[in-house]
Amino acid sequence: MSERSVSDLNPPPRILLGAGPANVHPRVYQAMMAPILGHLDPDFLHIMDETKDLLRAVFRTQNEETIPVSGTGSAGMEAAIANLLEPGERAVICVAGFFGDRIAEMASRYGGEVTRVEAEWGHIIEADAVEAALKAAGRTKLVAIVHAETSTGIHQPLHDIIRLAHDHDALVVVDTVTSLGGCEVAVDDWGIDACHSASQKCLCCPPGMAPLTLSPNAASVLRSRETKVRSWYLDMTLLDNYWGGRRAYHHTAPMTMVYALREGLRVVLEEGLETRIARHQRNGQAVRAGLEAMGLTLHAQEGYRLPTLTSVRVPEGIEDLKLRRALLYDHNIEISGGLGPLAGKIWRVGLMGVGSSAENVLAVLQALEQELAAQGFRLEKGAGVAAADRALSPD
Amino acid sequence: MSERSVSDLNPPPRILLGAGPANVHPRVYQAMMAPILGHLDPDFLHIMDETKDLLRAVFRTQNEETIPVSGTGSAGMEAAIANLLEPGERAVICVAGFFGDRIAEMASRYGGEVTRVEAEWGHIIEADAVEAALKAAGRTKLVAIVHAETSTGIHQPLHDIIRLAHDHDALVVVDTVTSLGGCEVAVDDWGIDACHSASQKCLCCPPGMAPLTLSPNAASVLRSRETKVRSWYLDMTLLDNYWGGRRAYHHTAPMTMVYALREGLRVVLEEGLETRIARHQRNGQAVRAGLEAMGLTLHAQEGYRLPTLTSVRVPEGIEDLKLRRALLYDHNIEISGGLGPLAGKIWRVGLMGVGSSAENVLAVLQALEQELAAQGFRLEKGAGVAAADRALSPD
Repeated sequence: MSERSVSDLNPPPRILLGAGPANVHPRVYQAMMAPILGHLDPDFLHIMDETKDLLRAVFRTQNEETIPVSGTGSAGMEAAIANLLEPGERAVICVAGFFGDRIAEMASRYGGEVTRVEAEWGHIIEADAVEAALKAAGRTKLVAIVHAETSTGIHQPLHDIIRLAHDHDALVVVDTVTSLGGCEVAVDDWGIDACHSASQKCLCCPPGMAPLTLSPNAASVLRSRETKVRSWYLDMTLLDNYWGGRRAYHHTAPMTMVYALREGLRVVLEEGLETRIARHQRNGQAVRAGLEAMGLTLHAQEGYRLPTLTSVRVPEGIEDLKLRRALLYDHNIEISGGLGPLAGKIWRVGLMGVGSSAENVLAVLQALEQELAAQGFRLEKGAGVAAADRALSPD
Repeated sequence: MSERSVSDLNPPPRILLGAGPANVHPRVYQAMMAPILGHLDPDFLHIMDETKDLLRAVFRTQNEETIPVSGTGSAGMEAAIANLLEPGERAVICVAGFFGDRIAEMASRYGGEVTRVEAEWGHIIEADAVEAALKAAGRTKLVAIVHAETSTGIHQPLHDIIRLAHDHDALVVVDTVTSLGGCEVAVDDWGIDACHSASQKCLCCPPGMAPLTLSPNAASVLRSRETKVRSWYLDMTLLDNYWGGRRAYHHTAPMTMVYALREGLRVVLEEGLETRIARHQRNGQAVRAGLEAMGLTLHAQEGYRLPTLTSVRVPEGIEDLKLRRALLYDHNIEISGGLGPLAGKIWRVGLMGVGSSAENVLAVLQALEQELAAQGFRLEKGAGVAAADRALSPD
């Protein structure tokens, strides 16, 4: 391929019902058309302040240190770890999926002494296991856990684990990539010390920004570090000098993505967090009811299933990739396969942001039914859609 | 400020003639409207391949490892250093400005033993000084240098320094943030081992992507590292597994920014690199002629002045910030002040990408003349514009 053969950009308008990115809200596309400003233009500094305020409202926090990191969700995750953990310090990392494992890998690269608390992929981390790890580990700098494990569809309870961590004087880092804006997240009420997320899931923006908020306790840890943060790009103290009062130049902020995030957050708050969370719950329930009515088996532990992302087992005899390609090319719908040990074993159906709608629930069930039947899977025609319909109109 | 007070986004359409970001090409805005795809969608993988091809053409390289890093220019810089330098290894870093200093800071954070080769801010780094440093330093892993020092307006000659570095078996890292797409950059012909840039200068995109290319020698260093790259997010081996053949999921690519970059690169190549470089040269010459005719003093060493960014001294008795605010609010034109030791002492006038036009040369000179006169600076009315006009139409 030579550069001469690169034609006009014309990607197909997919219905994105996988693990993310989700579809972008039309108002966010519109915001990205706004003209670029200088990164120290007073008008842009004002937009940055507004974006921080909106982020605080969505995170439900008063934290001063609340900014979008200039990178995708993993950059936010890495920023949390890189800033709070110094080489040689102990981190207890809860690993029950791909993203918990990623946090452990990052903590280890930043020189942390990592204690892993593991659970089967598709189960929650039990508070007892964290308590045992904390007792065995000795002095622990932080406990990290994924609130919405995108690789398994698990909705992790946090209350007891946060309490235990604080009892052991450890900070708590929580990954809310697949929950913020779609599930309840209350940073201050829950006592989270560092909470990171991503723009492309329930905040209905393109990928490229990673919201991050640090509690006063976490912020004071930054100020008392003995070593510099190894990553210059993700150094929160430098970042905060730009996003905060001093306005010292750090890197050139990605204006277009800031515009996008600002608009996505406004869309979230205009719907209202409670209404929005209820919508995600309703549609999540409906898709689960539909999948089970089709004879499929949900993968995530019962009682702890995310409304934003549903994991369902690939039935025996069904070709994973063939089915997903058929959904993509014949129905224009993307769902995701499994990651790591779950590759080929589960599908992941995301209903996030604008993507969480009754229409999409019915569309994905209908498409799945057709393609499962095409591969010889025996199911009762229309049962999935009917069950979802009942869940959507409970009266 | 509460989130309720956050109104519709409506930033003013500035003429961006500072140190960057520069104005975005209309076709790039249009490309950002394209619908988001999944990060493993075959259609998106194809767009990634096209973007890599376009990047190779603009970098003038055949390097397989050529990708845009998902972050702003500093993320590309950090990726180059983080991947090529292991803790305890020697780096010779050329520092004659803010960005050379930033590379040295990053190399030190990644555990490198840093030898700084310094020159006054506004002068080039002499090859002799690099040679002396290499002889004194002993075994050296890499030499890093800024091709277009955005803080001083210096256009650094590279030929001898690259040869010397290679004579000492060191890799060469070159920062082309303010030159790629506006000045000649020939990665393969010049023997650069790692070259990074940014989307928001001469490539006429918003900030948010950092093109990076690694020579086969640099790539082989990745494969023989003894330690893991400290930053997981910037680990080129993992990134290349996603952007390259294996397509292993790393982070969710920021599609919108990839779309933008792809279109910006197409715009660059459609104009043609030679034509484009000549345009930047012509307009750079014209603005310099105009500034000197107004009685101002250029800051960068004669013979080594960038066409893309001109540094000029703030005349005695003139208030820097007051003048720049007047340009911004009364003329809608952004120029930049100085950084670090040059704060308050110079202005930086950028003519990059779509911003490099005869109209902008004349507009900035006219606005400067008016605001300098308003502050009591004595100049011959119209002399700057007339000199620029002559430079623009040499016959």
